[in-house]
Amino acid sequence: MSATSNEWMQAAIQAALDNVKTLAGGPFGAVVVRQGVLVATGHNQVTALHDPTAHAEVQAIRAACRKLGHFQLTDCEIYTSCEPCPMCLGAIYWARPGAVYYAYSHEDAARAGFDDHFIYEQIALPIQDRSIPMIQLPTAGADPFAEWRAAEGRIEY
Amino acid sequence: MSATSNEWMQAAIQAALDNVKTLAGGPFGAVVVRQGVLVATGHNQVTALHDPTAHAEVQAIRAACRKLGHFQLTDCEIYTSCEPCPMCLGAIYWARPGAVYYAYSHEDAARAGFDDHFIYEQIALPIQDRSIPMIQLPTAGADPFAEWRAAEGRIEY
Repeated sequence: MSATSNEWMQAAIQAALDNVKTLAGGPFGAVVVRQGVLVATGHNQVTALHDPTAHAEVQAIRAACRKLGHFQLTDCEIYTSCEPCPMCLGAIYWARPGAVYYAYSHEDAARAGFDDHFIYEQIALPIQDRSIPMIQLPTAGADPFAEWRAAEGRIEY
Repeated sequence: MSATSNEWMQAAIQAALDNVKTLAGGPFGAVVVRQGVLVATGHNQVTALHDPTAHAEVQAIRAACRKLGHFQLTDCEIYTSCEPCPMCLGAIYWARPGAVYYAYSHEDAARAGFDDHFIYEQIALPIQDRSIPMIQLPTAGADPFAEWRAAEGRIEY
């Protein structure tokens, strides 16, 4: 008998709980499941790896894709202990899983000091209004996009 | 004499051009610079590594953080060949560089088949309106956030 959604979610939450014990990073865990079978588990490793992108969902997506040998997770579901931040949401859209299940909300995360509301606001702003200056510089020389369109053997993604 | 902004940008664009030659991934490159010195270069490795998160900016941020031994890039600038996608923008906000410089626009990217407009739209939608179903499940047992708040030795980030 395959695990239920609630059991997969409990596995994600357990990864988050374990992470607090090991202090590898923040209290977040995620699992990727394919056709009722666990593919990969991820936990937040931001501080342990010095990697600001090592959120639980990103780590789970990376591990699952590595295992499946593909950069897409179209026949998978992601269970994550907490509502994804904008970076993870972007990663999820690039990986294209069939569904995402989450337990704690971003309000729960904010109460524990993990507030991604600011980033959601920033992404919605016009580029010139963002708090981190984002400045367009002129291009020169060959255009990578033109080279790409002309490249034989390119793998679209 | 330290390199100018346009020279750093040319290094990012060169990484993108090199990437088309090696076909490691899409035509994108980025460099992280700290006080006039190159810290790390990143190039898109989505298809080569089977990693949907291996965009040029993410790879450059990860490499720079690994080199500097910290999960923040507050005294760094990022030069990227193309305007960041939402995932990379999220990664940039978590890494907190002082500034981001980009060359090609997301419209240029879209013309080459790399359209992140849909992801920007999706992130701005209420969670129940997104194209990938995102479903909240009930929590049970210990709360990772409560454990985190009680954990001695936790590293805030």
